[in-house]
Amino acid sequence: MSAPVPPIQKILESLHSELLENRDGEVATYIPELGKADPEWFGICLVTADGQVYQVGECDQSFTIQSISKPFVYGIALEDRGKEAVLEKIWMEPSGEAFNAISLRPGTGKPENPMINAGAITATSLVNGGDTDSMIRRIVRVLGIHAGRPLSVDESVYRSESETGHRNRAIGYMLRNFEILEEDPKACLEAYFMQCSISVTCRDLGMMAATLANGGVNPCTGERAVSRDYVENILSVMGSCGMYDAAGEWVYNVGMPAKSGVSGGILAVLPGQLGIGVFSPRLDPCGNSVRGIETCREITRKFGLHIFQVPRLATEVIRRTGSLARTRSSRLRSAVEMEALRQAGDAIRILELQGDLNFGTAEFASREFMRADDRIREMVLDFSHVTGMNSSAAGVLAMAFGSWLETGLRVSVCRCERFPLLEETLSRVIPDQWRKVGFFDDMPDAIEEAENQLLEELELRQHSSEAVGIEDCQLLSGLNLEDLETLGSLLKPIAFEEGESVMKVGDDPDGMYFLMRGKASAWIRTEAGRERRVATFSPGMNFGEMGLINHSPRSAEVRADSRIETMMLPVEAFDRLEELGPRLQVAILSNLSAMLADRLREANEELAQIHS
Amino acid sequence: MSAPVPPIQKILESLHSELLENRDGEVATYIPELGKADPEWFGICLVTADGQVYQVGECDQSFTIQSISKPFVYGIALEDRGKEAVLEKIWMEPSGEAFNAISLRPGTGKPENPMINAGAITATSLVNGGDTDSMIRRIVRVLGIHAGRPLSVDESVYRSESETGHRNRAIGYMLRNFEILEEDPKACLEAYFMQCSISVTCRDLGMMAATLANGGVNPCTGERAVSRDYVENILSVMGSCGMYDAAGEWVYNVGMPAKSGVSGGILAVLPGQLGIGVFSPRLDPCGNSVRGIETCREITRKFGLHIFQVPRLATEVIRRTGSLARTRSSRLRSAVEMEALRQAGDAIRILELQGDLNFGTAEFASREFMRADDRIREMVLDFSHVTGMNSSAAGVLAMAFGSWLETGLRVSVCRCERFPLLEETLSRVIPDQWRKVGFFDDMPDAIEEAENQLLEELELRQHSSEAVGIEDCQLLSGLNLEDLETLGSLLKPIAFEEGESVMKVGDDPDGMYFLMRGKASAWIRTEAGRERRVATFSPGMNFGEMGLINHSPRSAEVRADSRIETMMLPVEAFDRLEELGPRLQVAILSNLSAMLADRLREANEELAQIHS
Repeated sequence: MSAPVPPIQKILESLHSELLENRDGEVATYIPELGKADPEWFGICLVTADGQVYQVGECDQSFTIQSISKPFVYGIALEDRGKEAVLEKIWMEPSGEAFNAISLRPGTGKPENPMINAGAITATSLVNGGDTDSMIRRIVRVLGIHAGRPLSVDESVYRSESETGHRNRAIGYMLRNFEILEEDPKACLEAYFMQCSISVTCRDLGMMAATLANGGVNPCTGERAVSRDYVENILSVMGSCGMYDAAGEWVYNVGMPAKSGVSGGILAVLPGQLGIGVFSPRLDPCGNSVRGIETCREITRKFGLHIFQVPRLATEVIRRTGSLARTRSSRLRSAVEMEALRQAGDAIRILELQGDLNFGTAEFASREFMRADDRIREMVLDFSHVTGMNSSAAGVLAMAFGSWLETGLRVSVCRCERFPLLEETLSRVIPDQWRKVGFFDDMPDAIEEAENQLLEELELRQHSSEAVGIEDCQLLSGLNLEDLETLGSLLKPIAFEEGESVMKVGDDPDGMYFLMRGKASAWIRTEAGRERRVATFSPGMNFGEMGLINHSPRSAEVRADSRIETMMLPVEAFDRLEELGPRLQVAILSNLSAMLADRLREANEELAQIHS
Repeated sequence: MSAPVPPIQKILESLHSELLENRDGEVATYIPELGKADPEWFGICLVTADGQVYQVGECDQSFTIQSISKPFVYGIALEDRGKEAVLEKIWMEPSGEAFNAISLRPGTGKPENPMINAGAITATSLVNGGDTDSMIRRIVRVLGIHAGRPLSVDESVYRSESETGHRNRAIGYMLRNFEILEEDPKACLEAYFMQCSISVTCRDLGMMAATLANGGVNPCTGERAVSRDYVENILSVMGSCGMYDAAGEWVYNVGMPAKSGVSGGILAVLPGQLGIGVFSPRLDPCGNSVRGIETCREITRKFGLHIFQVPRLATEVIRRTGSLARTRSSRLRSAVEMEALRQAGDAIRILELQGDLNFGTAEFASREFMRADDRIREMVLDFSHVTGMNSSAAGVLAMAFGSWLETGLRVSVCRCERFPLLEETLSRVIPDQWRKVGFFDDMPDAIEEAENQLLEELELRQHSSEAVGIEDCQLLSGLNLEDLETLGSLLKPIAFEEGESVMKVGDDPDGMYFLMRGKASAWIRTEAGRERRVATFSPGMNFGEMGLINHSPRSAEVRADSRIETMMLPVEAFDRLEELGPRLQVAILSNLSAMLADRLREANEELAQIHS
């Protein structure tokens, strides 16, 4: 079958053909080069924050970026000088005046915001470089990272801009007069004319918008174009000052931070979701693309994309809660220990977190975490399914950990290595306590350690260094002395050194093993090729029993975690039991069935809990 | 142990004591009653979108709401007249002028926005009622739903407002002059004075903000105060016009839609996360609470709460993908069918969705859904873990379903009954196809149906109406004729009518059952008291076998789904096998162990898949 047309594509196509009929507005002619645009050009490009591109119409037609360069150059200024230094030079209040108004604040001469020409020229002056050439090279390079391809300046438009840029020169000298520009404005003005003349396509605009929507990282190349922290500042000035004198209406009806340019482009961003680029050269009296405005309005309406659309609180940050009474490590344990964990396991709470941790979700999770319960001794947090964490989330978690540790309780975390921010925040917020937090690479380890601690508190932990006799083996419970002796005569003692394999995947079964001393684990290889521990064995437990029953090759590797001593019942010996002691065989099989049924019931309960 | 102090509470407490030192600003005195406020009062209340309250300082001190009533009354006007009629009367552009400026738009006389007095008076005039009394009753009642408790008007402040309200009367008559008010302004002006005099506390403000953050539903009472759609409009005008002439700076530095009042209150909303109320009567020259502004600024800074903080795209909308090759229904099937499903199961893809479905997450999910793969015949979508769905998400899904059905493939959905919006959208967007979508109440049913369809296509489906012999029973495979005869002589045929119980939870085991004809299911009762099917049985399968082995009471109920015929092996007969035919017992136990081991391996694989 051929892939069906994606719904978003269909909607954009119908929107495109509908709005194609709108021929209102005029192509800008204030510089001659712009007047050469075909008024019929119309492209729409929507790019999701993970880089899926939907496009229709003239998305590969080149045009000059014009004012849409402003938010990006503001971002470079923030990168190169820091926020404080930039705010010294450029304010962030909408001016309520036209884009080419001088709009300097009374007294200081500070431009009202970076989206008007005065502010944009000032932002250009803050780009590292010193001379026109270095500044524009840096600007072209960074805008290219946003777009995901190398960009360049359209020389003929640049010449046209420079030849007719008298008003901008006036602004430049006025800024020099107020010491907002600290050197002769000539170099920075030329860089400004060039930055407006960078050649882009509608697809580039969509990708640049998606880069902002993705927190400053181009979702296709994975390259960072601007720091995450500055994206917030860029979107703020776009949100309040991006659409000239219709900011309130834009917020009300479109609700996405946006920027337009006189060549007919509009770029709009829905943070965390998508970016939009639209291109159509006919402009309304404010200088915004007529079809561009309509496209954004309709996309908002059809898709419900408003920034103030209230999402539900992400209570699904808790993927699952549990306790050791219901979730156990892969370690198979003696019946006594199992029963103890079933009884006392509520002392260890397990919290699986998921998704993106921000203030709201971290606060919710920490509340679940802090819930007072006298029985709880330890909290185990699983970060395996956490996709992101911002600084406020890290702060909330660090403080919650601190309060918890203060009262003498334990905290373990698992799979946190992807979030160095958390460890860094912990060491800063709770410098005296954070080293008490247990860090684990996988949940079975974390849970096993919690189990061990709990069993130790209950004085029940079986030391694997102590040896057991075959009468202590779970699988042989209920056998009388005579049966045990018969069986004992068939068993072969075998020892393995630490790290040695007892059996490997694919081996033909030689027999089943009773573990008398030490600790061993069973491992499988996942589809991804990673080794994963599926069971750990302590003295009194058995492994390899399935080989006796179905004679099929080994499905897991068993390795000694320490030096181990085993008693092995060979396949032939088990088969000989049919004559020697059928009652013995029935007893072993009954015990095995009961054990398997128990484990199956537990696995099913865990699955049911997950699915419910 | 006593519950540790939550981290948010700690931060608010330290913030409160720090800002208490700030004694800048003056208490408003433009009406005498306001001047009676204690300038030292200072309360901070943060309420999460799910209703958790954190508060510090004077959070129960009453004061009059003043301008903070404006966004809420605007919401009532939207409810009572609809958006179009309201926009006919009140625009949404920031005026850049003081709150009591007349600010009417040239030509139409339309107030610039609902946050200035002219717009707020107009909004009051649009509240249903007709006379002052009915209007204010409605306003007080709705604001009370936001606050989660009944509110009332402070009569002495109202009289003071009314006595000194000359400027507002001037505005009222000017609005009447432009036909914005269609009747004598007197009634609506008095209602306006009263609405400004509604008595609230800082805690009320926090709760009202949280109600907006929660999409219009008070998170504590669960009562809806305003339609979800209008919350977007309310937040838009707060975002662009809520903080008077510092809108750009507020967006840049605080980034939450907010509204302040001259009595010293500020209310701020972070959609989907939390609401903030602050109260401190000393005002800056713009009329905003000095400590209130600082509190919001610091909370933003400390917690990283900016509205333009870019969340990561919620790719975790996909909780899990699978196929029938790896996930099967609870129905136990014959080895041949099991093998067929293992081989061909990739034709059925299973997609578990989770969290809040908005445009971004639904688009991402639909892409996973639409991924072209020639083998796929059916898609099963599990909505069990979906917490919310907005109209854009429903639209995207409906279109994706349509494209899929068009190519002749099947779509099944599970647990969609909580989202009537989806069914409604399906019937509107794909009216000719939506009835082909399979709706299921639980996943095992949905998956079982998909399995049946697939087996039918493979011509492998076993009809439960056909009877089998004991030689077809999985548990007895490998037995020779003599053994089968011995066993046959011990079996008792028993039939059950549709719906009849074969065994109940807690029953002492009478024996194990081989199903010869018909279909039966095993059920357990969950902790929540709901019945859940854990297995279905078809001819050739057995149930109740654990009773033979461990003699423990039944752990599940088994009921006949249709009339069934069984052969029952009584406990005593099985025990007698020890003498009669130990080889037979060993064979049955070996088969049982192998079956249990198989199922355990599958359950563990499923768990591993979930945990990885």
